[in-house]
Amino acid sequence: MTRRIDIVEVGPRDGLQNDPANLSVDQKLEFIARLEAAGVRRMESGSFVSPKAVPKMADSPAVFAGLDRTKPTRHIALALNETGVRRAIEAKADEINFVLVAGEAFGRRNQGMSPQESADMLSHCAPLILEAGIPLSATISVAFGDPYTGDVDIAVVGGLAAQAQRAGVAELALGDTIGAATPWDVRKRIDRVRMEAPDVFLRMHFHDTRGAGLANVFAAVEAGVDVIDASCGGIGGCPFAPAATGNVATEDVVWMLERAGFETGLDLARLIETAKWLEGALGHPVASALSRAGAFPAG
Amino acid sequence: MTRRIDIVEVGPRDGLQNDPANLSVDQKLEFIARLEAAGVRRMESGSFVSPKAVPKMADSPAVFAGLDRTKPTRHIALALNETGVRRAIEAKADEINFVLVAGEAFGRRNQGMSPQESADMLSHCAPLILEAGIPLSATISVAFGDPYTGDVDIAVVGGLAAQAQRAGVAELALGDTIGAATPWDVRKRIDRVRMEAPDVFLRMHFHDTRGAGLANVFAAVEAGVDVIDASCGGIGGCPFAPAATGNVATEDVVWMLERAGFETGLDLARLIETAKWLEGALGHPVASALSRAGAFPAG
Repeated sequence: MTRRIDIVEVGPRDGLQNDPANLSVDQKLEFIARLEAAGVRRMESGSFVSPKAVPKMADSPAVFAGLDRTKPTRHIALALNETGVRRAIEAKADEINFVLVAGEAFGRRNQGMSPQESADMLSHCAPLILEAGIPLSATISVAFGDPYTGDVDIAVVGGLAAQAQRAGVAELALGDTIGAATPWDVRKRIDRVRMEAPDVFLRMHFHDTRGAGLANVFAAVEAGVDVIDASCGGIGGCPFAPAATGNVATEDVVWMLERAGFETGLDLARLIETAKWLEGALGHPVASALSRAGAFPAG
Repeated sequence: MTRRIDIVEVGPRDGLQNDPANLSVDQKLEFIARLEAAGVRRMESGSFVSPKAVPKMADSPAVFAGLDRTKPTRHIALALNETGVRRAIEAKADEINFVLVAGEAFGRRNQGMSPQESADMLSHCAPLILEAGIPLSATISVAFGDPYTGDVDIAVVGGLAAQAQRAGVAELALGDTIGAATPWDVRKRIDRVRMEAPDVFLRMHFHDTRGAGLANVFAAVEAGVDVIDASCGGIGGCPFAPAATGNVATEDVVWMLERAGFETGLDLARLIETAKWLEGALGHPVASALSRAGAFPAG
């Protein structure tokens, strides 16, 4: 029996949100269509947050309106308050991913909320989402470290997970927003979240800012996690480390997993092709290793 | 008790050997001195191979002659036949690392030897090295995949390890010369080598060609390996994937290990400084993540 690992493609949201380039709605839709052609079936396709705070996602309603709904893809919309949730429901998001925050300082600056306030906001918004019949997932951002204050207490992460479970979240991601995680810490935080929120499925969201992205994926998969976020090309960067790389790259994750015998359902050659197309669209190179080195053994 | 992981710095050999830049002997000696100032105590400082095959290492005798021997560093010389061994002894290498090859096609092209011939050459050369009182280590190159023929049989790796042990090798590295390894395969091959060569210490040599470098380091450390090769800046590249990154970067490995509570004895800030100095000396950016993103928490 081949074990299946599902990749959630976050390039159109987390990737583009932090990229210096400005893609048009049509370019974003082409990116999404290319990802679907590569086998992606679940993807963060936009963010319903303040256009002032995140100008690159201001066109998310237009992107959602332009999606090809004949395809089997589940399009995830990101939200972090009631306004966002209402807009995501209106845009007919297939799933809403709510953003919790584990770091006090990051939370204040990123979404004007403390960790507890973000969890309370989730508890407030969850009924709206669930009553609309929309699957609800959540991501705990900066779950491994806060760019302003350093380490994030594992107890805060555990507490947020417990409250997310009570709110009705079906799947919870631990987000290493700034690339602070090591694989040893991944294991520890997964264990803690499982203890405090045993009924939620786990997903992991890693950035490769300090090179440990795939090490963290490996640790998570070994710990039994079956769902991993990744962005085509490894786009995404981090506003706090301008020269740093972004999310773990979809093609790198897929290569490592498939070479080790896992099944992802994704077409590596098409992903690499999409990463190369993306370099043209963005006007700069992307960070993924596979887009430079190619697969081994060669295709 | 803090667990200690020893890093063998391979930048001056494996790194510079495959870099497009040509450093002078003085620049190489400055690189080595900067690494020593960052705490490096064991380093591949040159290669005694055919200057025609590897022109960038033709000056290794001059580099070894210029080393500051008042420092506690153990300078390793690489060799792959009797001529090289004799030259390395003459250069007063503190240790000789002999190169075995696990891939038939790669072996033929890289050193004109089959795997078996490389092992026989080691058996032939080992007495020379041991009688000179010089510690003998070996690296099995392309132990995870051959760029020409794809997968490398684990039985070949095990057989080479057994013969290396019989020849008197004290420490053996499995080399992922082209970035073909996954952490699952790392675990398997370590187990196999331990079965067939239980008396040799293990060292691992990874390239980050396909992004899995630190994942492989993590798998090796978890499997009980205490010695890891790395190059400052992640220089090294691979002649078979011109745009690809090189060895795992010393500063990235050190950051991940020290953040997870291991001790390496290396000074991260000085390593990053050396990687930046190296960018100037080489005339191009280096691949390490830490040289771009900095440490977390910020040093």
